[in-house]
Amino acid sequence: MVDTGSTAWLLGSAALVMLMTPGLALFYGGMVRARSVLNVMAMTFVCLATVGLIWVFYGYSLAFGPDWFGGLLGTLRLAGLHGLAEQTVGPAGNQVPLYAFVAFQMMFAVITVALLAGAIAERARFWTWTVFSVVWTTLVYIPVARVFAPDGWIAAKLHVLDFAGGTVVEVNSGAAALALALVLGRRHGWPKQAVRPHNLPFVMFGAGLLWFGWFGFNAGSALVAKGSAATSFLNTTVAGAAAVLGWLLVEQFRDGKPTTLGAASGAVAGLVGITPGCAYVEPLGAAAIGIVAGVVCSFAVSLKYKFGFDDSLDVVAVHGLGGFAGTLLIGLFATAGVAPGGVNGLFYGGGFDQLWRQAVGTLAVLGYSLAVTLLLGWVMHKFMGFRIDREAEIDGVDEAEHAEGAYELAVQSGRRGSALAGGPGSHRPAREETR
Amino acid sequence: MVDTGSTAWLLGSAALVMLMTPGLALFYGGMVRARSVLNVMAMTFVCLATVGLIWVFYGYSLAFGPDWFGGLLGTLRLAGLHGLAEQTVGPAGNQVPLYAFVAFQMMFAVITVALLAGAIAERARFWTWTVFSVVWTTLVYIPVARVFAPDGWIAAKLHVLDFAGGTVVEVNSGAAALALALVLGRRHGWPKQAVRPHNLPFVMFGAGLLWFGWFGFNAGSALVAKGSAATSFLNTTVAGAAAVLGWLLVEQFRDGKPTTLGAASGAVAGLVGITPGCAYVEPLGAAAIGIVAGVVCSFAVSLKYKFGFDDSLDVVAVHGLGGFAGTLLIGLFATAGVAPGGVNGLFYGGGFDQLWRQAVGTLAVLGYSLAVTLLLGWVMHKFMGFRIDREAEIDGVDEAEHAEGAYELAVQSGRRGSALAGGPGSHRPAREETR
Amino acid sequence: MVDTGSTAWLLGSAALVMLMTPGLALFYGGMVRARSVLNVMAMTFVCLATVGLIWVFYGYSLAFGPDWFGGLLGTLRLAGLHGLAEQTVGPAGNQVPLYAFVAFQMMFAVITVALLAGAIAERARFWTWTVFSVVWTTLVYIPVARVFAPDGWIAAKLHVLDFAGGTVVEVNSGAAALALALVLGRRHGWPKQAVRPHNLPFVMFGAGLLWFGWFGFNAGSALVAKGSAATSFLNTTVAGAAAVLGWLLVEQFRDGKPTTLGAASGAVAGLVGITPGCAYVEPLGAAAIGIVAGVVCSFAVSLKYKFGFDDSLDVVAVHGLGGFAGTLLIGLFATAGVAPGGVNGLFYGGGFDQLWRQAVGTLAVLGYSLAVTLLLGWVMHKFMGFRIDREAEIDGVDEAEHAEGAYELAVQSGRRGSALAGGPGSHRPAREETR
Repeated sequence: MVDTGSTAWLLGSAALVMLMTPGLALFYGGMVRARSVLNVMAMTFVCLATVGLIWVFYGYSLAFGPDWFGGLLGTLRLAGLHGLAEQTVGPAGNQVPLYAFVAFQMMFAVITVALLAGAIAERARFWTWTVFSVVWTTLVYIPVARVFAPDGWIAAKLHVLDFAGGTVVEVNSGAAALALALVLGRRHGWPKQAVRPHNLPFVMFGAGLLWFGWFGFNAGSALVAKGSAATSFLNTTVAGAAAVLGWLLVEQFRDGKPTTLGAASGAVAGLVGITPGCAYVEPLGAAAIGIVAGVVCSFAVSLKYKFGFDDSLDVVAVHGLGGFAGTLLIGLFATAGVAPGGVNGLFYGGGFDQLWRQAVGTLAVLGYSLAVTLLLGWVMHKFMGFRIDREAEIDGVDEAEHAEGAYELAVQSGRRGSALAGGPGSHRPAREETR
Repeated sequence: MVDTGSTAWLLGSAALVMLMTPGLALFYGGMVRARSVLNVMAMTFVCLATVGLIWVFYGYSLAFGPDWFGGLLGTLRLAGLHGLAEQTVGPAGNQVPLYAFVAFQMMFAVITVALLAGAIAERARFWTWTVFSVVWTTLVYIPVARVFAPDGWIAAKLHVLDFAGGTVVEVNSGAAALALALVLGRRHGWPKQAVRPHNLPFVMFGAGLLWFGWFGFNAGSALVAKGSAATSFLNTTVAGAAAVLGWLLVEQFRDGKPTTLGAASGAVAGLVGITPGCAYVEPLGAAAIGIVAGVVCSFAVSLKYKFGFDDSLDVVAVHGLGGFAGTLLIGLFATAGVAPGGVNGLFYGGGFDQLWRQAVGTLAVLGYSLAVTLLLGWVMHKFMGFRIDREAEIDGVDEAEHAEGAYELAVQSGRRGSALAGGPGSHRPAREETR
Repeated sequence: MVDTGSTAWLLGSAALVMLMTPGLALFYGGMVRARSVLNVMAMTFVCLATVGLIWVFYGYSLAFGPDWFGGLLGTLRLAGLHGLAEQTVGPAGNQVPLYAFVAFQMMFAVITVALLAGAIAERARFWTWTVFSVVWTTLVYIPVARVFAPDGWIAAKLHVLDFAGGTVVEVNSGAAALALALVLGRRHGWPKQAVRPHNLPFVMFGAGLLWFGWFGFNAGSALVAKGSAATSFLNTTVAGAAAVLGWLLVEQFRDGKPTTLGAASGAVAGLVGITPGCAYVEPLGAAAIGIVAGVVCSFAVSLKYKFGFDDSLDVVAVHGLGGFAGTLLIGLFATAGVAPGGVNGLFYGGGFDQLWRQAVGTLAVLGYSLAVTLLLGWVMHKFMGFRIDREAEIDGVDEAEHAEGAYELAVQSGRRGSALAGGPGSHRPAREETR
């Protein structure tokens, strides 16, 4: 029997996670220059299309279908999702329609791929990216999701804990982001030329939307609207809160001023950090994890300057390292007092057992994702071209890839004509006319 | 007994559908010129006020109250909604409070009227529009909603299927949009003068919000948080996904570049297309409907140039034709495999029976809406004036109708004074002072 | 036993109320000048961090923990929220996890403090504000929330009705806003120099988001997904609708034009007005309350010019007076026909009994909040400095407090160099480089 309450929560959560992609588009869009905002938003947005479709075609079946071999991949028996409208999943008494679970998991796949766009913002070809989103989901996201599914190898054999995707989504996307940044190379002028966010209100509001959506991401992962969902919800917001303060304090002491970019980045870092452990720790444990994530990531953003890779929007530092820290910290802060039958971490008398499992599991994903993405990115760069021309990059990727400019904001009378309209596109006729 | 799970889902869905109106305001607002953004946002926003109020006063009663005659209109017995706080509706075991259903349906009425604002953006009088929103809801929306209500004439007698408003909302608004565009006439300079969207990030983000809200629109229409809600949810996002790709591919082959305006428009087209059939088709059927909607609408946007009507923001092409296509496609893709006891379309062995029913039902609404809106619009244009003066239009409708300019974005020191403040309103004292 | 439906609704509502803070950040951010938008957004956003954390550390325990003395304050027994993951609250058959209730109430505390930022926008020190948010929550919000909790003094002894926080959140924040505006003093040039909103689309969209979030705020306060939630939901939107029209009509007759700032402000005024009584009145009563709130607040915004206090974004007029009016109107419009076992107001035969209780309860909060905030604000202003320097204020608080400028919007080729980049920060290297 379907539990309508848990179904309502799971559908609502799927909607919340879907909203994270437009939220990410604003967050990323605000951080790039005005001549590149449309491209990064489009790269983010198109993942809803490509990843959403392949999830139905074969993705769900490979990731969550009947086991094919050893918990490493599913079969294609559910490809196309034909005839499953009456199926349910979940514990007896709290079952939900299978299609609700499919939709919820789809949104996780979408946002994971969308995250990668931040590493190569301002210089990527849109169609190459679009094809990449399909291949990467197939070769990287799906196998990783599979091994963390309840009957997957890492979850069932290695007993690694990852409640809501700290490894599957965050470490995975962080490692792949590093690979893509290396394959595509630095932006023209980077790091000498300053790249200031062109629209910080978008960045702050985007972070707020991500926070909002993250409630679905973490608390929805409980699949039932009961205690574990509430625990995850509370811990999620506590960790976000602590990380904002952590990041702002680092900025104050290091740079002399707390910035809004820091507040927004700190929130995301804390939300990333708590993702794997949100249902396994106490609220004070969540606060500790949030502080650590905020402080670690606020320092990690300088790594790209040190090592010279142009991860445009700090996906490696915030998602990769934040997710890595959060996954490890389960080994310290997990407590069976919150999750009955669960494990105790080092600080709760559980010793080092869970800690090494967490380290091994997440490093395995990190290595797999980095290696496969490097190879895949390199092949696509070689054969399709992943990067726009230097001239086009200097003129702006929006114009080059989409024949659009983001803004024409002057509030002016039509009387004064188009002389003031500005923007590189203003000399061309509107596309509308040419339709 | 109230089912708290279905109540949670229906209230959440009502909130999601409410959010579509501010989302539409951003989507529309970003597409017009900077001097017209406030007016189109205000026209959209005010529908929450006018339509919301008349829904309580008499709208709900006429549309969903006890039958008056032949399934064509309800009585006024529930006008004012007095004393109904304890009433419930819905199937036994899954009942929800009547007021939750009232609120959910209210949001559908609001967004339908708000959609029309896109057809006459940049040139309409605000107060005439406000009065129009009341009269049009009364004369057009309510009767159309009534005949599609469970005991309404078209639903009960003709057996036309429309799960979430493909005809009631989409075809209806598309037809009325055409009527209004004809009544008000073309904008000054159209189509010779280019009208480029002034803020494409708003357009993309607005489309993302519409997608998010559409989960409530479609999956909420199940009224219970069970299988049909989950099916609708999954199909909704699949169709949106397919239509984004469909539209972008058309742009690539036709115009040479995929645009962000196209991605956003494609999403909306797909969501429109799946609205009538979201609970009646398989996920792969939804993908097919999405592709068709994306391709059809991407070509349909040029019809206004061909026939010379200035439907400013393509309401006719996207909502009218997208909704029409989606309604017909039920006749092809519907399958009882998804909706037990439901119908089979042509592709599932059901023959042409459902197809002609769909065609007749939707054409009836199209004709009624077009005719009544033409007449109503003409009368209001004649007696109240629906269009601002030519001079005012050239200077900008925001200034003319609201005495406001949308932006003063220069991040400048107060030291430099107001010389750079710009905008047509900058020479006037702030309204605040005159209060 | 946990009711999954009510849990889904309460968690969803907590998420909606959380979103009100980023929504408020846009609403406030759009209303200030472009050189101050980041600071007011940051002041709003940081409340999620500070208030969220202290809510876990001790706030929830003091406000909702076991009684300490006479319903005036709770004990610290629940401080840190240790070991409560299995606890539930609520009526038998509709219980929800305690942590869900904690998270829901946390978001109320956050938004209440965030509201105050509007009174002192464009001139406050960020760190002083941050510390203030902690102390004010402790000394003012928590005791006020406590006396209105079910076993609190005002609720249990005086029988004052406040369903969703009309006094605790709205009157409370309005009174404290007045105190802060008095302590910090007027902005440079105010009221002679015009302060026009720099981004009205943000203001309108922010108001739309607040409306959306308010469904969680009001209907979530029912704690169960049943009739009272649905009644609150419907009344919330009706009051918002009526107030939009009320405000726009006042503007039309007083100033000659209906503005978008007025539409947005009217919506918020109506939502504020219905907050205390949303579950106690009929839909037509809600419409009446909305009209009153819209009209009263639209006139009240001129009080600051009359009395000379610079409440930058009208927190006193909209939240203080709107909340005060709404709290009193319960004494007129409350009816046991909607809330079984509830009270009848003056218009429903209940006499003046409830009216004086409402007046006494809300005036007590108003007086307490005003007095303590004046003292606290004065002490902090004296010892920490609450206001930025005059020079810094003229140059812009964003630059002074955050070393950031909100926008660099020119869509320009990198070829043309940074000569056109503009903004006061454009001569400095990007912070990124200095990390």
